[in-house]
Amino acid sequence: MKYSHFPQRKDWPALLARPVVAFAELESRVMPILDAVRQEGDEALKALTSRFDKVQLDQIRVSQAEIQQAESLLDPSLKQAIQQARQNILTFHQSQQASDDKIETMPGVLCWRKNIAIEKVGLYIPGGTAPLFSTVLMLAVPANIAGCEEIVLCTPPDSSGKVHPAILYTASLCGVTTMCKVGGAQAVAAMAYGTSSVPRVYKIFGPGNQYVTMAKQLVAKEGVAIDLPAGPSELAVVADDTAKPAFVAADLLSQAEHGIDSQVLLVSSSRQLIEQVQEELRLQLPQLPRADIAEKALANSQAILVEDEATAIELINAYAPEHLILAIERDEEVAARITNAGSVFLGNYTPESVGDYASGTNHTLPTNGYARSYSGVSLDSFVKKITFQKLTAEGLQRLGPTVEIMAEAEELIAHKRAVSLRLSALNEANL
Amino acid sequence: MKYSHFPQRKDWPALLARPVVAFAELESRVMPILDAVRQEGDEALKALTSRFDKVQLDQIRVSQAEIQQAESLLDPSLKQAIQQARQNILTFHQSQQASDDKIETMPGVLCWRKNIAIEKVGLYIPGGTAPLFSTVLMLAVPANIAGCEEIVLCTPPDSSGKVHPAILYTASLCGVTTMCKVGGAQAVAAMAYGTSSVPRVYKIFGPGNQYVTMAKQLVAKEGVAIDLPAGPSELAVVADDTAKPAFVAADLLSQAEHGIDSQVLLVSSSRQLIEQVQEELRLQLPQLPRADIAEKALANSQAILVEDEATAIELINAYAPEHLILAIERDEEVAARITNAGSVFLGNYTPESVGDYASGTNHTLPTNGYARSYSGVSLDSFVKKITFQKLTAEGLQRLGPTVEIMAEAEELIAHKRAVSLRLSALNEANL
Repeated sequence: MKYSHFPQRKDWPALLARPVVAFAELESRVMPILDAVRQEGDEALKALTSRFDKVQLDQIRVSQAEIQQAESLLDPSLKQAIQQARQNILTFHQSQQASDDKIETMPGVLCWRKNIAIEKVGLYIPGGTAPLFSTVLMLAVPANIAGCEEIVLCTPPDSSGKVHPAILYTASLCGVTTMCKVGGAQAVAAMAYGTSSVPRVYKIFGPGNQYVTMAKQLVAKEGVAIDLPAGPSELAVVADDTAKPAFVAADLLSQAEHGIDSQVLLVSSSRQLIEQVQEELRLQLPQLPRADIAEKALANSQAILVEDEATAIELINAYAPEHLILAIERDEEVAARITNAGSVFLGNYTPESVGDYASGTNHTLPTNGYARSYSGVSLDSFVKKITFQKLTAEGLQRLGPTVEIMAEAEELIAHKRAVSLRLSALNEANL
Repeated sequence: MKYSHFPQRKDWPALLARPVVAFAELESRVMPILDAVRQEGDEALKALTSRFDKVQLDQIRVSQAEIQQAESLLDPSLKQAIQQARQNILTFHQSQQASDDKIETMPGVLCWRKNIAIEKVGLYIPGGTAPLFSTVLMLAVPANIAGCEEIVLCTPPDSSGKVHPAILYTASLCGVTTMCKVGGAQAVAAMAYGTSSVPRVYKIFGPGNQYVTMAKQLVAKEGVAIDLPAGPSELAVVADDTAKPAFVAADLLSQAEHGIDSQVLLVSSSRQLIEQVQEELRLQLPQLPRADIAEKALANSQAILVEDEATAIELINAYAPEHLILAIERDEEVAARITNAGSVFLGNYTPESVGDYASGTNHTLPTNGYARSYSGVSLDSFVKKITFQKLTAEGLQRLGPTVEIMAEAEELIAHKRAVSLRLSALNEANL
């Protein structure tokens, strides 16, 4: 890790800068994929899957037989772990259900909001060597609680044309309605435009590589909602002398193993703690299967020695990390002063990985500083809130004159007349 | 209005199609404005204001003297109306405050969410002949309830370099912290990048013309959050024989006067009602100051005769209108079956204009079919929800094995080790 001592505030932006992605070149590579899918539908999906995933598919949709078989292919202990994680995620996301109270803002003026599921949603699950079934949990569980009618999952097939049974099992457990073997930008296009095999959806969720991310941004411009703008995953740890250096190092490594562009930050006012963590990193790193990735990520990461706790908090809020671990004595006090972060982990027994998998919180979180203005995925992400209002005749008689004056001042006379006509009719009826 | 009788479902998409905006050309006109502001700051703002608003500004910020003077320039009845509207908007948006309950998803595993204000927000208020102070209310009131520290307002100056006192008065009443005389794409750029006079913000709200809309889309790609993608305003009215044709016509005209691209839809299973409304439109239209605009908007609008109420509901949900008036006997029953709309107005005494100004609901709503996946602006729009979690040692002992199994199956061994190390330490401590 790079090591900075007491950096000045003017140097923070450079110290905390994220990697910059070259948009323009990516866009020119992704756009033709979107166009192909829009114009040729399933045919384009099959051709692109052959090209990128090296497999010829007969059927894009996962069959019922494959879904049924998945359960029997999984180890019982993994199934049980997935069920436990699902239960915790269900419990936490169910607690996010809002009540639709009717508010009488004035006598006779009733206003309320109602949460209504987005009818059709799409979940993108990346491929790769390992099956990211945890992301299926994080997206399908709240979609299911919200009551989304159509929950479409797209994930790339392996070179034999199969999807990992852990993904199929989890998707089936969590109420996914349609599973498709398609990945990359073409999967995003398929869900945005619809094809014979892949239903069109109104909102697309899920992580992916830079092509998937760019495809989501491009379809968002055309009106398909997306969960979050995406960037490389991030972890900041604030630690003091009550932290266990071995635990902190293990947490930093768990972030670093994601990819060479992972962002890792260690902030402390204890020189000793930073040095102990560095030593632990040297000890633990060689023991990891993904040591080469983690080592590269760490090389670009920062250990920052700060004057005091207040400076650490200020620096964290300036950085706005996706994940933040507070391995400090006064964790709850400091947590109350965190204003920019995706998800915060308190104390020595709350590694980020519990939230990544199974504690109940969502792991789809704002990266790249977006935590300043965006929330992570939650039940809210799968609903719209429609407002309703109903005025009684008396309510309109009370509120109407206010509306007439305001509409007139905005020179919107038809707006005023929609009230005036009604007030006249009520006056006549009362004569 | 165009008049369709019992259109077939296959013809609905064409019937309900929105106008298409030519993005590419707009982008090439807006991009240089963004670049100029990013590079030259206030100098660019002054030059662009001179070019587009025909006025040379010395100061971009509105002065304290101007703000204080505004109050004395306004009619007392207008001030009282604005205060009444503010009170109702405050009451409804305060009711949207969420509690931050801590949830124990398993013994020793505590998860919670906290709503935290977005620190810096920007409100764009369009210029034009009339001052849109109602939009100031709709954006500044919830920003203030949320606790946003910096609330920046940008609006174009008139040709004498002034901002209408109704805007200044309302902004001051609602806690706007900085008011700037700058409009168009350059205002969006200023709030996205920051200049000497205009503070940089993390989220930009507010309606505007196509240049403003494009500028918001472009800065959104760079990571600045925006409220909603925008399109022309829309109203659908579902009416039956209990509706008053004069009221329905007045509502349609209140939408039509917004602009020639306003979308107006009348849906009914009563041939008689549709004919009576058409007649009322002919009578009322000539009485409007903006009759020429309303007439053009109506020429592109649709009256649709449908078989029955169920078909009307289906058609409305397919269209996903920004505003929906249910001028029908069974308004509450039908409202319960509306799944895609921005804001719904029930009964004969709830014209859209009450919601536009003063009932309490927000008037910043999803257009262009975005109501399928987006909510209108609410208190939620001004906060992020950060998740927190804290496990006790016992909690980690219970949940840890689940995380270990899942991380191993995803081949993220450092994730597993962050748990295993802690479990080992706890076991040793217990020996």
